[in-house]
Amino acid sequence: MPKKKNGQTQKRKIGRHIITALVENHFGVLAHVSGLFSARGFNIASLAVGETEDPTVSRMTIVVEADDRTLEQVKKQLNRLIDVIKVVELTGKDFIDRELILVKVKISSKTRAEIIQIVDVFDAKIVQATDQTITIEATGDQQKTQAFLELLEKYGIAEVVRTGRIAMER
Amino acid sequence: MPKKKNGQTQKRKIGRHIITALVENHFGVLAHVSGLFSARGFNIASLAVGETEDPTVSRMTIVVEADDRTLEQVKKQLNRLIDVIKVVELTGKDFIDRELILVKVKISSKTRAEIIQIVDVFDAKIVQATDQTITIEATGDQQKTQAFLELLEKYGIAEVVRTGRIAMER
Repeated sequence: MPKKKNGQTQKRKIGRHIITALVENHFGVLAHVSGLFSARGFNIASLAVGETEDPTVSRMTIVVEADDRTLEQVKKQLNRLIDVIKVVELTGKDFIDRELILVKVKISSKTRAEIIQIVDVFDAKIVQATDQTITIEATGDQQKTQAFLELLEKYGIAEVVRTGRIAMER
Repeated sequence: MPKKKNGQTQKRKIGRHIITALVENHFGVLAHVSGLFSARGFNIASLAVGETEDPTVSRMTIVVEADDRTLEQVKKQLNRLIDVIKVVELTGKDFIDRELILVKVKISSKTRAEIIQIVDVFDAKIVQATDQTITIEATGDQQKTQAFLELLEKYGIAEVVRTGRIAMER
């Protein structure tokens, strides 16, 4: 949301950043890394941690709202942690990003056809259907998953689970 | 930790558990929650945090290796945290689980057709292709994504990013 300006120039621009970190696969690392962000009061939009091709190493993808300068400091601190192998900021680079969502939507005999049409258009998959609800699996980049959820909102979303974004440099 | 009882060691069964938690959307919560697990020395397989239908609330899906009794204590502690709204263990329940992976595989003129066939069989998608590599997006439950990665291993995996599992009760 854009904030009202009172004529003063805003010194630090808050933006959404996407960062990936290769870390040793210990749970303590996650507490350490998330502590660094929370200490700065950064708002995190999503976080995904999964194993990599090397089972001793995990990859974290963090989407965070922060100003450039403070984020630069946090990245330096991250790089200094023993269990952090590598930190890369993808913002501004050419990358592929994807998110997976599971969404349970309310359905009736009147809306069924419309909802199935939306599922087809977004190349999503129906994973379960009952008389009252339909559960859909959808993937895409930020824009696509957002648009998908917005279209389904009017039917009534009973439940949604999102993985958060993962990303890879092209 | 195994406790001695009547001179005999009572072993605690370590298993993989899947837990979802609805939490207030503050980054501090994540540090708090992950701290509770790391204090017990639990090994986390994956963690996914994403926004829900209510922007002030996030949902965490945690896959953790732990013994039943200690995990029970951690769940109670989680429930006591102010920012934790609800904790549900899905292990043993009827649930849908999904994971998204992005995987960059080495490719040659000899292996190209084989790899594309695997992509088709697993209903995966090619998101980028060069002369040397192919980047694939795949989704599925634990078993499917694992089988997919194992099949691709012999071609040489250059990079893999996983969201970690998300899950929803049926």
